[in-house]
Amino acid sequence: MSSGGKGSGKAGGGGGGKKKEVKKETKLGMAYKKDDNFGEWYSEALMPSVTISFVHSIAYILVKRLNSCSVFFSSLQVVVNSEMIEYYDISGCYILRPWAMEIWELLKEFFDAEIKKLKLKPYYFPLFVTENVLQKEKDHIEGFAPEVAWVTKSGKSELEAPIAIRPTSETVMYPYFSKWIRSHRDLPLRCNQWCNVVRWEFSNPTPFIRSREFLWQEGHTAFATKEEADEEVLQILELYRRIYEEFLAVPVSKGRKSEMEKFAGGLYTTSVEAFIPNTGRGIQGATSHCLGQNFAKMFDITFENEKGSREMVWQNSWAYTTRSIGVMVMTHGDDKGLVLPPRIAPLQVIVIPVPYKDADTTAIKGACESTVYTLNESGFRADLDTRENYSPGWKYSHWEMKGVPLRIEIGPKDLANKQVRVVRRDNGAKVDIPVDNLVEEVKRLLGEIQENLLKTAKEKRDACIEVIHTWDEFTTALNNKRLILAPWCDEEEVEKDVKARTKGELGAAKTLCTPFEQPELPEGTLCFASGKPAKKWSFWGRSY
Amino acid sequence: MSSGGKGSGKAGGGGGGKKKEVKKETKLGMAYKKDDNFGEWYSEALMPSVTISFVHSIAYILVKRLNSCSVFFSSLQVVVNSEMIEYYDISGCYILRPWAMEIWELLKEFFDAEIKKLKLKPYYFPLFVTENVLQKEKDHIEGFAPEVAWVTKSGKSELEAPIAIRPTSETVMYPYFSKWIRSHRDLPLRCNQWCNVVRWEFSNPTPFIRSREFLWQEGHTAFATKEEADEEVLQILELYRRIYEEFLAVPVSKGRKSEMEKFAGGLYTTSVEAFIPNTGRGIQGATSHCLGQNFAKMFDITFENEKGSREMVWQNSWAYTTRSIGVMVMTHGDDKGLVLPPRIAPLQVIVIPVPYKDADTTAIKGACESTVYTLNESGFRADLDTRENYSPGWKYSHWEMKGVPLRIEIGPKDLANKQVRVVRRDNGAKVDIPVDNLVEEVKRLLGEIQENLLKTAKEKRDACIEVIHTWDEFTTALNNKRLILAPWCDEEEVEKDVKARTKGELGAAKTLCTPFEQPELPEGTLCFASGKPAKKWSFWGRSY
Repeated sequence: MSSGGKGSGKAGGGGGGKKKEVKKETKLGMAYKKDDNFGEWYSEALMPSVTISFVHSIAYILVKRLNSCSVFFSSLQVVVNSEMIEYYDISGCYILRPWAMEIWELLKEFFDAEIKKLKLKPYYFPLFVTENVLQKEKDHIEGFAPEVAWVTKSGKSELEAPIAIRPTSETVMYPYFSKWIRSHRDLPLRCNQWCNVVRWEFSNPTPFIRSREFLWQEGHTAFATKEEADEEVLQILELYRRIYEEFLAVPVSKGRKSEMEKFAGGLYTTSVEAFIPNTGRGIQGATSHCLGQNFAKMFDITFENEKGSREMVWQNSWAYTTRSIGVMVMTHGDDKGLVLPPRIAPLQVIVIPVPYKDADTTAIKGACESTVYTLNESGFRADLDTRENYSPGWKYSHWEMKGVPLRIEIGPKDLANKQVRVVRRDNGAKVDIPVDNLVEEVKRLLGEIQENLLKTAKEKRDACIEVIHTWDEFTTALNNKRLILAPWCDEEEVEKDVKARTKGELGAAKTLCTPFEQPELPEGTLCFASGKPAKKWSFWGRSY
Repeated sequence: MSSGGKGSGKAGGGGGGKKKEVKKETKLGMAYKKDDNFGEWYSEALMPSVTISFVHSIAYILVKRLNSCSVFFSSLQVVVNSEMIEYYDISGCYILRPWAMEIWELLKEFFDAEIKKLKLKPYYFPLFVTENVLQKEKDHIEGFAPEVAWVTKSGKSELEAPIAIRPTSETVMYPYFSKWIRSHRDLPLRCNQWCNVVRWEFSNPTPFIRSREFLWQEGHTAFATKEEADEEVLQILELYRRIYEEFLAVPVSKGRKSEMEKFAGGLYTTSVEAFIPNTGRGIQGATSHCLGQNFAKMFDITFENEKGSREMVWQNSWAYTTRSIGVMVMTHGDDKGLVLPPRIAPLQVIVIPVPYKDADTTAIKGACESTVYTLNESGFRADLDTRENYSPGWKYSHWEMKGVPLRIEIGPKDLANKQVRVVRRDNGAKVDIPVDNLVEEVKRLLGEIQENLLKTAKEKRDACIEVIHTWDEFTTALNNKRLILAPWCDEEEVEKDVKARTKGELGAAKTLCTPFEQPELPEGTLCFASGKPAKKWSFWGRSY
């Protein structure tokens, strides 16, 4: 066993009892249903974070002492029970465990290879930035200032001046772009770094979705012309779409952000937007910004063109974060736990021996090992759960909780029939496969699951889209947790007004994006909010 | 061109002039010789850091305005001129450019795959740690306290309590080890993370070698028995040796640290130690610590053994950092710049067209492209320098500065003879290779260079080793910048005394390690410093 299933025995308490009891016990792991209590199902979003660490501390002690405390653990939900996340004793910070990090590594492997094809080069810029430089671009710092964490002391000494921890690296990098770029021959300049950033937010921390420190990649590029910058914005956005749709099986809309919602200090922002039907909230999946020449002006980033005169560069910046993992969990998870798309599942196949009484356990174990060996040799990520202190039933629940796409069971009957039983995590379907067809059938099934997850998620998302024309329709749709597509006059004042009028406990509604795929807009169509002539269709809703 | 050679035209000022002039001009890049002014050759170690950022700021402006300022750039040395490092406007922080990051990625690829074979799992723990937890292990915090950076503000608000930035993650991780480990079945627990850490040191910041933020991997493991922990300490140490000797071609000694020099709070520390002949200083290459049960006690990390009673775990932690790149630069670099071992060179072969007047430039360009294509297809990292604004001579110097192991020149004569001219960076040897043997010859040459660099470095290092027996011999050897191997009584008081007696401008001498390969210690051998019976041979010297 090397699958990070460590310590999970705790949830099962006494574990390994009679089969029926075990089944019941593991059910404790999912005390909340996704459709009934989404927040609790996902994590502990509604619990104030201070309480969380207090409860945890108490829990440590209880568990240490009693060593059987399943009631407590039942309140920790899918991201914790699946062993992706561990809560940390600083609010808004989380421990990413192997079950999350291995997904992050798979996404990184894909994305990093793709951007290297686009001639992006790896850099590492410092975590720290001086106040002076951070404040150089006014709109930019206004956007980030309230969330910046400041280092003011080292050891017992006060620093001469406080130093900021990067919330993003535009201001860290661009003074050096100014230094490195002289001539048109130095362009394009294409930097990427994989790193941590810190945004000390105070609103509801939620694992993956909103955390005070997170991991991301940030790409920063400079071009001689706007055309080149524009082109790259969309190349990167397409890679982000592929991460969501092809890897995480999460449907997203590509589109452009409104002036209010664009990146602070940039020219325009494009994004991929996902939607969580259970909460009726949109969620920004990743952003690809064209910064225009604004930072170039502030940081004096110019080049000598082929005719010998000076011009300002055109810049982009773009990023996706560990949030993507959270969006995937919310999209596919069910009342049994995680459901992982095969392409990013740390483990694609878990093999479980089912040794009935009097069966030839050695032969079963041998068949299991040979199955795992064959699958690994063929490039699948497969493992074997040989733990003897858990029943097969407990293991089924455990690996369902962790979302492994395929479970293979091998018992005496399978052995006799030269077959294995395969169970799909996404729809529970069971099928017996002849051992001789193992590799091709597993390949086919994993492909089907990957496809089915995206298809199902897309159907659910599409069923939530509601086209509206009037304010009344808008508020009704909002209350019904719909993803609202509305004709809009594209005026900032109107978006502000909509925000003000929808303010409330659940947060205000705002534009999510103006999708690139625009339905027809018949002449004379009016803005749902202002009654002025509409200029475009935009997605509206509450968001994360 | 995709090799990160961007902006290097600046060093050459007007560039592309007559051949001889160019040669002279590029020489400006190495104003200091390695054997004469090592500190300046490597970086700007002797310049106070405040001055550096001031000089840089001025330089930005000068360069922007005058666009020809080679005198200034001549004072930036090998790590800067080779485009590995850019100085940053916060002292002790450096920008790692692609020429450094690509080396780091190659090292990471090797090491990460090796530790995954050892069942290490990827984790990411938070950057931050509370004061309370940080101070749990007394010796440990005493070791790190003076260098800890503290966050005290977010936005404009004071935090309730200051939060530390991790200088290392023992205290970040071990409260959760306590939670995750219950039973002997949860062991071993093996965590690794790749991340940044911060140590706000005040002594001489030096790129790679001593920086306030650096990148590393840190492995943290827990075992049921001391034997398992001991075994892993050495497995990891062997991987560190391989990084240095097989990849970076830097000879190292495996050994054990003295009680004074061991990891704060640990049981014992092993390390690989390198030596820089030019400065006569030892340098710790990487450390693999057995923490014993000390942290287990402080953080209550216990497990139920197979007999049902509670025991404390045995722990290790181990790390290597971007410092390794600096050691490699210091070891192999020469008066022309970097010399990179082929296994870690971002670029192994640079192909340069040599288009004499009236030559068939199209055919030459074609031959160059075909050469690069063939090499890349065979798995080598090769690129072509087609820039037309630089002469071949300028390019030779440029790629020598960057340390590319092999240069291939193709001119009309080579074309006619169906050959290419290959020039080795390590010894300058030139050889003509028939195009038909290209791949096998390049493979052979790169292998030879890799081997030769280690062999040469080992000879230089070994020539510095001096076996001494008396205090007089010791001080003479120390003044002569030798790597001192001395018989020692292994008493902490004696090491303290040696430190006190050798205090001075260059720093005190101390033990580097007690090498595992011990020469014979004849009975009656006395400690060089105390005159008491010697217990072992240890390496002594000044160190980084």
